[in-house]
Parts: sequence; C-alpha cells; structure tokens
Amino acid sequence: MIEQPAYTVEPWRIRECELSLETLAQSESVFALSNGHLGLRGNLDEGEPHGLPGTYLNSVFELAPLPYAEAGYGYPECDQAAINVTNGKLLRLLVNDEPFDVRYGDLLTHERILDLRAGTLSRRAEWISPAGCPLHLRSTRLVSLTQRAVAAIEYEVEAVDQPMRAVVQSELVANESLPDPGRDPRVAHRLESPLQPEEDSLTETGAVLVHRTRHSGLRVAAAMSHVIEGPDGTATELESAPDIGRLTVATRLEPGQRLRMVKFIAYGWSGERSRPAVHDQVVAALAAARLSGWDGLLADQRAFLDHFWEGADVEVDGDSEVQQAVRFALFHILQAGARAEHRPIAAKGLTGTGYDGHTFWDTETFVLPVLTYTRPDATADALTWRHRTLPSARDRAAQLGLEGAAFPWRTIGGEECSGYWPTSTAAFHIGADIADAVVRYVDATGDEEFEREVGLELLTETARLWRSLGQHDTEGRFRIDGVTGPDEYTAIADNNVYTNLMAQRNLVAAAETACRYPELAGRFGVTNEETAGWRDAAAAMHVPYDERLGVHPQSEGFTDHARWDFAATGPDQYPLLLHFPYFDLYRKQVVKQADLVLALHLRGDAFTPEQKARDFAYYERLTVRDSSLSACTQAVLAAEVGQLELAHDYVGEAALMDLHDLEHNTRDGLHLAALAGTWIALVAGLGGMRCFDGGLAFAPRVPSGITRLAFRMRYRGRCLRAEVTHDSAVYTLLSGAPLSLSHHGQEFSLGREPVERPVPAATPGPRPSQPAGREPARRRTATQVR
Amino acid sequence: MIEQPAYTVEPWRIRECELSLETLAQSESVFALSNGHLGLRGNLDEGEPHGLPGTYLNSVFELAPLPYAEAGYGYPECDQAAINVTNGKLLRLLVNDEPFDVRYGDLLTHERILDLRAGTLSRRAEWISPAGCPLHLRSTRLVSLTQRAVAAIEYEVEAVDQPMRAVVQSELVANESLPDPGRDPRVAHRLESPLQPEEDSLTETGAVLVHRTRHSGLRVAAAMSHVIEGPDGTATELESAPDIGRLTVATRLEPGQRLRMVKFIAYGWSGERSRPAVHDQVVAALAAARLSGWDGLLADQRAFLDHFWEGADVEVDGDSEVQQAVRFALFHILQAGARAEHRPIAAKGLTGTGYDGHTFWDTETFVLPVLTYTRPDATADALTWRHRTLPSARDRAAQLGLEGAAFPWRTIGGEECSGYWPTSTAAFHIGADIADAVVRYVDATGDEEFEREVGLELLTETARLWRSLGQHDTEGRFRIDGVTGPDEYTAIADNNVYTNLMAQRNLVAAAETACRYPELAGRFGVTNEETAGWRDAAAAMHVPYDERLGVHPQSEGFTDHARWDFAATGPDQYPLLLHFPYFDLYRKQVVKQADLVLALHLRGDAFTPEQKARDFAYYERLTVRDSSLSACTQAVLAAEVGQLELAHDYVGEAALMDLHDLEHNTRDGLHLAALAGTWIALVAGLGGMRCFDGGLAFAPRVPSGITRLAFRMRYRGRCLRAEVTHDSAVYTLLSGAPLSLSHHGQEFSLGREPVERPVPAATPGPRPSQPAGREPARRRTATQVR
Repeated sequence: MIEQPAYTVEPWRIRECELSLETLAQSESVFALSNGHLGLRGNLDEGEPHGLPGTYLNSVFELAPLPYAEAGYGYPECDQAAINVTNGKLLRLLVNDEPFDVRYGDLLTHERILDLRAGTLSRRAEWISPAGCPLHLRSTRLVSLTQRAVAAIEYEVEAVDQPMRAVVQSELVANESLPDPGRDPRVAHRLESPLQPEEDSLTETGAVLVHRTRHSGLRVAAAMSHVIEGPDGTATELESAPDIGRLTVATRLEPGQRLRMVKFIAYGWSGERSRPAVHDQVVAALAAARLSGWDGLLADQRAFLDHFWEGADVEVDGDSEVQQAVRFALFHILQAGARAEHRPIAAKGLTGTGYDGHTFWDTETFVLPVLTYTRPDATADALTWRHRTLPSARDRAAQLGLEGAAFPWRTIGGEECSGYWPTSTAAFHIGADIADAVVRYVDATGDEEFEREVGLELLTETARLWRSLGQHDTEGRFRIDGVTGPDEYTAIADNNVYTNLMAQRNLVAAAETACRYPELAGRFGVTNEETAGWRDAAAAMHVPYDERLGVHPQSEGFTDHARWDFAATGPDQYPLLLHFPYFDLYRKQVVKQADLVLALHLRGDAFTPEQKARDFAYYERLTVRDSSLSACTQAVLAAEVGQLELAHDYVGEAALMDLHDLEHNTRDGLHLAALAGTWIALVAGLGGMRCFDGGLAFAPRVPSGITRLAFRMRYRGRCLRAEVTHDSAVYTLLSGAPLSLSHHGQEFSLGREPVERPVPAATPGPRPSQPAGREPARRRTATQVR
Repeated sequence: MIEQPAYTVEPWRIRECELSLETLAQSESVFALSNGHLGLRGNLDEGEPHGLPGTYLNSVFELAPLPYAEAGYGYPECDQAAINVTNGKLLRLLVNDEPFDVRYGDLLTHERILDLRAGTLSRRAEWISPAGCPLHLRSTRLVSLTQRAVAAIEYEVEAVDQPMRAVVQSELVANESLPDPGRDPRVAHRLESPLQPEEDSLTETGAVLVHRTRHSGLRVAAAMSHVIEGPDGTATELESAPDIGRLTVATRLEPGQRLRMVKFIAYGWSGERSRPAVHDQVVAALAAARLSGWDGLLADQRAFLDHFWEGADVEVDGDSEVQQAVRFALFHILQAGARAEHRPIAAKGLTGTGYDGHTFWDTETFVLPVLTYTRPDATADALTWRHRTLPSARDRAAQLGLEGAAFPWRTIGGEECSGYWPTSTAAFHIGADIADAVVRYVDATGDEEFEREVGLELLTETARLWRSLGQHDTEGRFRIDGVTGPDEYTAIADNNVYTNLMAQRNLVAAAETACRYPELAGRFGVTNEETAGWRDAAAAMHVPYDERLGVHPQSEGFTDHARWDFAATGPDQYPLLLHFPYFDLYRKQVVKQADLVLALHLRGDAFTPEQKARDFAYYERLTVRDSSLSACTQAVLAAEVGQLELAHDYVGEAALMDLHDLEHNTRDGLHLAALAGTWIALVAGLGGMRCFDGGLAFAPRVPSGITRLAFRMRYRGRCLRAEVTHDSAVYTLLSGAPLSLSHHGQEFSLGREPVERPVPAATPGPRPSQPAGREPARRRTATQVR
C-alpha cells in the first residue's frame, strides 16, 4: 500500500526518485515492460530484493486441478495458471568481495524511469559497498515492440574514486522460488518448479535453456547473448546446468573506467514444435536482435511509439496527475495488446500473475474499445483469438445444454477455468460483450475481411446462445432468467437489464451481418428462419422497469430487496466480499460495480436522458466500487448527465488505481481494464464520444479543474483530434478523408480545416450521493493542482 | 442396483435366501444393526467379500479440509467425516487348510434374516470347501438396544459327514482398507488409516485396542471377550499388535460336533477422557455384557422391541410389500434414534458413510415426527443435541451477520460442513424445521421440562434468526429474500413459500412460548418488544400468489420461468443434477423434491382445500423426485386431495426406496428420512393424521389396494390405535386417559371403548400427471399382490 504517491508527476515519464522497499512489488508492476507476447516485471537487475519475480510469455500456463468441496455437473476440473518462465533479466554484480545489494552498503541515489515515449525502463544508482568501495550503476531495459521475441538490457558499472574488481554474472534462471501468495482469492496459485529441463547449452556469447511444463506440455526456450565492452584483461566464462545459464564477466576497473554490457534475450515457446525447433527459433531471434544492435532496437522502439502516440495521445491541462496517468495507461494498454497476436490480453496483461494470468470480459468491454480507436490491429488480433477458441466455447455450450458458443468467464487457452459458477458460468453477458467488441471494431475500421473471417461467426454463435438461453413468456416477452450481470454482488437473477440489452444488440447485429453476407452465413447454417428468430427475440426483449420508483431495476425484483446497511458498514469492511457472505450481498441492494449504469453507457440508445439521470442517481447511492471496473463507467454517466465535477472525481479514481495503488493489490499486476477506463472516462466521459448507429458523435464538456482536454483517435483509416476547453471544442482531421461527425447532437462535416463548435452549458440536478464513506476522492480544481 | 427384489416378502423379517455378490453392499446397509450409538454394517462374519466394511460410533469423525477453487467469506474450512472405527465383528474360519470364503468352494445354502422383533441378524450356511470338506455355519448378531456400548455374536461351526480341523480367528481390526468411493458427490470422503494406535493389550478372554483420530483427537477403545464351547482339546491363543487384537481357537470336530463361540464386543470413545479411562470403560461394558450373557442380551433385546412395537406397529393388509417395508422402516428409525442420546441422527443413521455421516434437516422434518409419536424420548434426545450445538450455531449466525442461531446444513459435531452455500447456508429453513420439531414434540408429549430446558431457547434463537434475516418492504409485508427452500433445483430465491410459512410458525411459537415462561425468557434477553416484533413479522409474512395461474409460486417469480423440457429429457438423465448444470436447473420450473407441496402438508392450516388441490396438481407436473425426500410428502398430499391410488403409489415408492434400492445407492447407507417417510405416508397420508392448533386429528381413507390399515402411536402419555378399512375407522385407546380426537373434521371423545366412525368417500378430480417418465410405479390392487 502506497500511502504517499511513489512517483513524481511528469507528463511523459514515471520516475521513482528513491528506492522504497515497501513499494517494491507495486513498482515491479508499474515498471513492467511487455509487448503482449513477452513480459518482464520491473524486478531489479540483480534479482533481489524482490516482491514477485516475473517473466511471462503470453499463453504459457501450467494446468492444476480445480478442487471442489462438493462437485457439480459441468464444473471445470482444470485450471490454467500463468507461470513465471525462465528469468533472463538477471545481472548480478560482485564488487571486490561483496555482492551489490541495495539492502546493504550505502545507497546514495537510486532512480528509475519508465519513459513512455522511448519505451524503456532505465535505472541509475550510486552505491558504496559495505567495505567502502563506491560505484555508479546504470541500466536500461526494453522489451521490443518490433521484435516480439526479444528483450535487451544495457548495463554499465563505473568505478568511482578507487579501483575495483567487478564481476558481473548474467544469467538465465528457471524455476525461481516464489513468495507465498497468501489467501486472497484474487491472487494466483503458486506452482512450484513448473518447468522440467530439456536442454541447457552454450553458444559463443551466451546460453540456451529449453524446458517443458509438466502437465500442459508447453516447450519454452530462452536464450541470451552478450556484447561486452570493458578494459583490457576483462575475462568471460560461460557455463550452464539444467536450470541455469551463466556468463561471468570479471574485470578490474580504474576510477572512471566502465564495464558496459548489452544483454540480448530471446524467448520462444510451442505446444507442438520440437526441442531443436524452439532452440533454433530463439537463437535466430537473438541473431536478429544482435543485427539491430542496442541502438537499433532503441530507435525502432521509439519509432513504434511515436506512431502510436500520433493517433492516441490524450492531453489534460489542469490536472497533471491525470495527464500522466492517462499516458501511463495508454502505454500499458499498448504493451499488453501490441504483439499479443492471436493470443489473449489478460486482466493484468503480462505484468503479474494476479487472477492466474486469466483473461475476462473486461478485455472486450474496457481494453478493446481503447485499442479499437488507437491501435485497431490489436483489437482484431484479440478478437481473432476469441474466434480461434470457438471450438471450446461450442463444447462448453453443448455441455451446458445450449446452442452456439458459451465463452469462458476466465481462461488462457479457451477452456473455462472458473471455479464458482454463480459469478462466472452464469455471467453469460461475456458473449454479448465479445459481440459488442466485434460490432465496435467493424464500425470503427470498416474491416470487411475481419467481418467475414472472424466477426460473422462470432456474432452468429453468440446470437445462438442467447436464443437458446432465453425464452418467450406468456405475454410474448423474451426473458433471460437466472443469469448474473457485471455486478458480482447480485447473482443468478432474472432479466438483468445489462445482459438483456447487450443480448439484444448481439441478436440484431448477428441478423444484420448475416444479411450482408448471406452466402457465408449459409455456410454456418444460418437460415432466414434463424435470423428472424434473432430479430424477434431482440424486438421482444424484456427490460424490467419499476414504475413505483421510476427507475430500472438492475434485474427483476432488485428494487424490492432491502438496501445494504451502509451506515453500519465500517471503512475496514470493504471490499465487502472479504467481510460478508455472498448470500447476504446477493439478496440486498448493493452494487459492486456499474451494471445498470454500464448499460446506460453501452446501450445509451435504449434510455431517455431523464431515465439516465434518474437511474444514475439511484445506483450512485448503492454502488461501492469494490471493483476497479466501475469508476470509469460512473465517470462516463456522470459526465453525460452533466455532473462534471463528479465525473472528474471518477476520472481521477480510474486514472490513479495503479499509480496510487488504490486497491492495495497493484503488486499482483496492473489493473488493465481500469487503466483502459482512464481513457474511456476522458474520451467517452468528458469527450462524450459515442458510436451508436454507425455515426461518430461527441458531446464534450470539461469540469472546472480541467482547462483543456485534447485527444487523438483513429477511425476508419483517419486520424482525428478533438480539443475541448470550457467554451468550445475544435475538431481536426489529422489524416484521411473528410467525414461527418456530431457535436452535442448536431452533425457537421470535418475536412481539411479544423471545425470549432461552442460547448453548451450543462444543466445538472443536485450532485448524486454515494454510500457513506464510499464517495470518490475529490479532484482539486486547476489552481490547486501542484 | 437390484433388478429383482433381493428379499422375500414377509411381515416381520427381511430374509435373503441366497447370497448375491452383486447386491452385497446394499445388503450390508439393509442388514445393518445399530442402537444409535454403535452401528455395524451387515458385513459377512469373515469380513470378505465386502461392499464396504463398516463399524461406526455416533459422532466419531475425523476432520478434513474443505477445498475450494475460489474461496469466499464464511465458507466452512473443515469437514467432519464419519470414520470406520475398529472392526470387532470379524470371525474368520479356516477349515483344514482352506479359508471359509463364499467365493470359493461350494455354497450349498446361504440365508440371512433380519428379525424385526428379535432385533437380530442371523445367518445359516452350508458349504463344501474346495477340497471337499462340508460344514454348517450359523451365526447370530445383535447390537444391544439396552446396553448401548455392546454388540454380541453367537457363532457356530458344525462338521458334517467327515471330521475336520477348524480354526476360528476372532479379531479386532483397526484401519481396514476401504474401497475407492468414486466421484458421486453424495458418497463419503475416504480417509486412509484415520486411527493412530495408543494401546493394544490382552485380557483373559480377549483384547483391547485404543486408538486416537489424528486431527479431531477423539479416543476410541474397542474390546472383545469370548465364551467358547468346543470339544476337548480345543485350544486358544491370544495376541495383539497396534492395529489388531486376535483370539485364535483351534479345534478338531467329528461329524455332528460343533464349535460354538459367543463374542462380546464393547466400544467407548471420548474427546476428553484419558486412555486408561476409555480402556476401563470398555472392559467394564464387557463385564456387564458377560453378566447378562448371550441369552440375557437376546431377551432384553426382544423386550425392548416388544415395548416399541406396542406403541408403533403399523399393519397394512392388501399390500404385503408395504407391510414389510413399514416395519423395516420403523425398525431402522428406532435403531438410529433409540440410544443416540444427545448425539445427532445422521441421514444414513449408522448404516454407512454416505454424506460423510452428516445429519441434515431431514432428521427434524422426517425422522423426528416418527419418533415423536412412537418413541418420544429419542426425539427429546435429538433436539437436546441441537440445543447443545447452540454455541456453534450462534457463532455461525454472527459470522453471517445475523442474530440468533444459524444451524448447520450438514454436520456431525455442530459446525457447518457444507461446501456449496447456495443449497446449504442459504437453506435457512433448517432453523424453522428444528423449531417445528420442538413444537411437535411438546404438543405430542406435554413435556414442560423439555420446553423449559431445551425448547424455549431453540425457539428463541431461531426466531431471532428470522427476524434479522427478513425485512418489511414498502407495503409492510415481511419478506425473506435470497434463500433456498427444500427443493434443491431452485436456489437463492425470494420469498420461498415453504420457508416463509415455516418461519411464521417459528416466530409465533417463540412468542407464545416466551409468553408462557416470561421469567426464563427474560433470562435469554427476550423482551416484550422482541416478542411483539416476532408476532408482527409473522402476521405480516409475505406469501406470494400467482393470480394469473391461481397457484402459489414456490418462490417469487418461479411460475414466470420456463418449464423444464421433460419431453427432451431421457430416462438416463436422472437424477438431473448429475447431467445438467445448476444454472439451468435453478432458472427453470423443475422441482427435485416437494417444497411448496411440503408446505401444503406441514402448514396445511395456511391453505384452503381448493388451493391444496390446485397447487398439488401444478407441482405434480414439475416434480421429478430426484430426492428420496419427496414421495412421502406427495403421498400425504395426494391422500388429502382424495387421490388415493396416487397416494398408494407414492407410499410404495417411499417404502421400497432401500429394499428395492430405487436410487441405486443403498450401498452407501439407508435413506433414513425416506424410511421415515413410509410411516408418514401411511399415517399422515392415508391416516390423515394432523396436529394443527394442539388437537390430534385424523382423516383416514385407504386406496383400493389396501383393505385394512391399522397404526399405533403414543400421544401425551397414551397409546392409541386406529384401524381403517374402506368403510370405517375404529379408534382405540390402548392405555392412558381419555382424550378428544377428530375424525374427518368432527370431534369425538375416546375413552375405554373403541369408537367407530364411517369413512366419507373421496371426491377427487382427475389424477394429476407427472413429468414424462417420472410417474411413480403403480401399486397393484389387493388381488394382484402375491
């Protein structure tokens, strides 16, 4: 738990000015580098001390049995848990006779910087050994966004004032021992020594280790290679054993002399390919990395990021914390998705093993919207991964007695890994969330190839699920009973409004898309009768409404339940799920995370402005935000109903989730969806960006504490920029063909010339209240921000 | 699975005419002997072959962790599992050089008889060894109902035609290896070697073993002593080791000569007392048993049973299978409860380790009503056990954020052992079921001492639970949301009618009893304000009703759900819970076991006759009877609404559950509640016995296939008998003071003279239908019964 923010507030960097051992684990997550394929936690070069050592490869997991006190039909039997693979980032240093360890000796300075434009983590330290030998240490690390198998580290030791003997051991280490994870259900399982050695060998400048996971049978190869610059007489030695590869570099440095090493690391894995094949693969990746060289990798990294920021940057004047946080968020979203390439984007990305490295619905609902408008290829890749898991999802649907595809609540490989069905299997909305992501991506890109090869089948199979899951009642309404919406404090309820409305969109989109590709749809067995059934179910979809209160119940009967006794709930009793039984949470009006309010956002077309205002105010009083997936949605609705200061407060909460460790578990990995929520809160919230019915609309308004908000986005081959102040909004087409947009309900054409429009004043009602003690922290107004 | 009934149909005995190895495990349950304290499965004397070796002591259990794939607040962490204690019933026989084993040689005859009046299991066998040596074997076994620590076996071997050497090894064996239990969740855990040896020692005629369970720390002592009658030259030898005590008897028998042994066995256990103390306890129990001698034990056993049958026998003319079954049922109910003495009565009694030896709500709801009217002391004992577990139940309520006491769904020692909360923790009705058993017992006995010492506090603490679990809604109705009723195919629903009506009775009874004992109630902190709150909640209790269909929904919204697709469900897909996910069962109209219909029975005072007929018919179409706790209740309601043939069919199903192994799991132990249901179906069903508002009422009618039904019962110090034919009912007061009764709604006084009343004809509507393929087997009419 970080009581004081650990990092300086700067627009393009995250800088830690001194090393804090208390926040070491959090910093490892914050400083994690990844490209979506390979991820390195921000562990210190020398490996110790650490919070959680971590090196991850997307989709490299081990299997573990899921235990049940009382088993039931259809319970998944096998968990997939991301594992810590071979650690290639270790560089241990011995100075004279003493190991460099920040816990000993005298650490004069220690600075780490995550540079959001360079895509590097750099470190500088001045240290005096216990025996009194001073030195300077510098290292810079990157995980290449352009060569996805590759990471590299530049490492420099400099003698200061006196000569010294320096020995650097650069290692590959498999099966590192991990700390006890404790009992928080949100933390990962600990798998002891998951890697079985298959090969250890030496190359001219490094070593290769090949291992295989015991149960999942995945083969993992890691290799390292080095470029060494040191004084004459610098000696090197290579050795390897089953779980270790080691290059030892020994040198004698006079004051001012340096030992500089560049370590190239490469990873490869496969469930199919042979040991020689994965061996050769990593050796080849190393050769390519050496060809680029350290400077080449650095330059490629910056170019990649420059291109990204060109279509993605968000500027926030007046709230420098949010300014920093939204760039931090975008950087990590990019890192998680850039090179995932037909693999999932996990809830924690590749920054930690929280939630066992699983991916959930929040990828489609929170992360993909950001990528869709900033790096659309990554969205296509992530949805292509879902498409590839269709066989598992079809099997699961069949097991559950349903048609179509039932996607897993949590998974790495596509099979359901959830051990508590009321808030997983029953949360069928994930199917509609995937469909929604498909619709959004196609709308934002016009990618017809994707629509044909991926989209149509996803829409078809999810629509089939809804048609078989729901049924018409006597009055002809289409009901979906016994399911769980996004709010995990109510489960197994009838006609969850969010679920029904998202299913409605799914059914309509499937019918329309099938209509556009009749021949292809026919190959999937879609008939006119089937699409008519989808349209009919969508048209008849039951959306419960409480006439008495004039609000939508989150699900049928919800508003009849007792309200949670917030007054009797102490601040130390949050999150409620750790202090109260599910049975009590489920049967009372208390909301963990936006559910009906998420429907107000994503299906805003289904509500009147008056309904939105009433519903939002009603659910504000019940929502405790025990999930990181809530503040951003509340920001969006607060902004829409004109509660701009409240929206700003929620923007702040979403933005600072990890930089301020608001949920005290950033140590297990970053909250990727909350990071994405920062962008959503700013762009969909304050920017009022919506895409209903194929048109791109904005309704921007900024709160008093933000003097200027500007954001860039990619849309149907164009690059756009919107800039908003309290008085006006300016829209600029940075590249691409002219298009029609909407500003506060009024259409306009955007061509070569920027278009300026006045921002109408908001007419909010009274500020909605939150449960006692659960009010969001107030953002300071512009003049108060340091 | 028994395809053909395994036993002859006789009024007072269960006789197996030949040994069937396929039904061995079932027969071990059917032939189990117990007194509620000690239970022996009907294993063969020689131990092998066996289905499941079993020797049980009430409340001797081992602890085991309850695993969860995803843990949650308030989940029980520790299971209590009944264990197989030291086996004292082993008597192995060696004939010349060959072991007597029914799987080898030539088994000419093999007969076993459970005698329901003698209280013994006897066995006769004629066997020729593989080498051609013939012999006769006879044994008789009893578990004493009068000396609860004691069992005894008379064992005789006779040489036939040729001389033979016979060696009998009489043993005590601890930590027998047990068969793999497979994966059915209703079966027990298997605990390997749960007993740690503390002592093995020899006495003059036997041995003593003392063990202790590893985690629960319970000390168990078993001892044996022998009386041997054999020809001159019969030699004996005693030995012991940590897990075994053995008496070896060697003799040479001429044709016609016999070796006769009586083996006395005694058990004792304690969580507190020292090793010497439990050692001495069992040695003393053996001394008392030897003092009685075999004949004395036999005579005491018969006298105990004679007294029981005098006030409990049920006669059924016209359906000899049901005649046998109801006596078999009463015998096993008595065995389970007679000497349980402040210990629980488990779902399987002491006949097997199904459900880990746990006790559930069915003890109070099905078993105790039978004991209340046939052996009321046992009911008082069982409820006193519940009272003793109040501290655990109060802790559990506090953990769940509730007032009063939350009794465990399944337990041995009083702590919750259930690993799936939606159908356990949420099934709060167990509190009302216990309260109902208290009310029934006090009504049937007038036991004021019990009411003061046990009843009032149980009623108070359960009423407190209801008052804190429910709440008034805007209209002032008292709602109980998010709970699970008896039907486990719907869970976590609002205003389950059964729960609400039983809670209503509980609240009223608590208020009334507190009113009768104001000073004592004051000591429990009960105030007039509190009882007023109970009365008010009871008066305002919400009972949902579906005006459109004119029936009560089982719980709110139930009748809006889709009906289960019974036509698409194959016969091999029952029980549904093993073939369909809970999520699908919960959200559809399908009923595992009587729930609303159980309310129609137990709270019959809350419904009109027309409502009962409509509700019963509605739920008949939805009820699949995947639980053994359903047929009896359906029999009761079928009889009440005049569907006498249907009632008879359900009587048959309840009656033959174990004798015909209808659920294919009698091997794990008898279905005690279903056995009790046989009596309930006959006495409350065909006899129409009810006790609302303090009066004892009958409304008897017999179906065409039963020509005469007679039953005896104990009531407020009296012994009554009712005898019913198609035309009339005769009530006889066998002992005790005159009293008022009611016959089909008309009161009459019963004194010394029997009273005869005509039976009015039933006016049933059309026979209700059941789900396709789930109709009960039709009972044959009188003339068809063999």
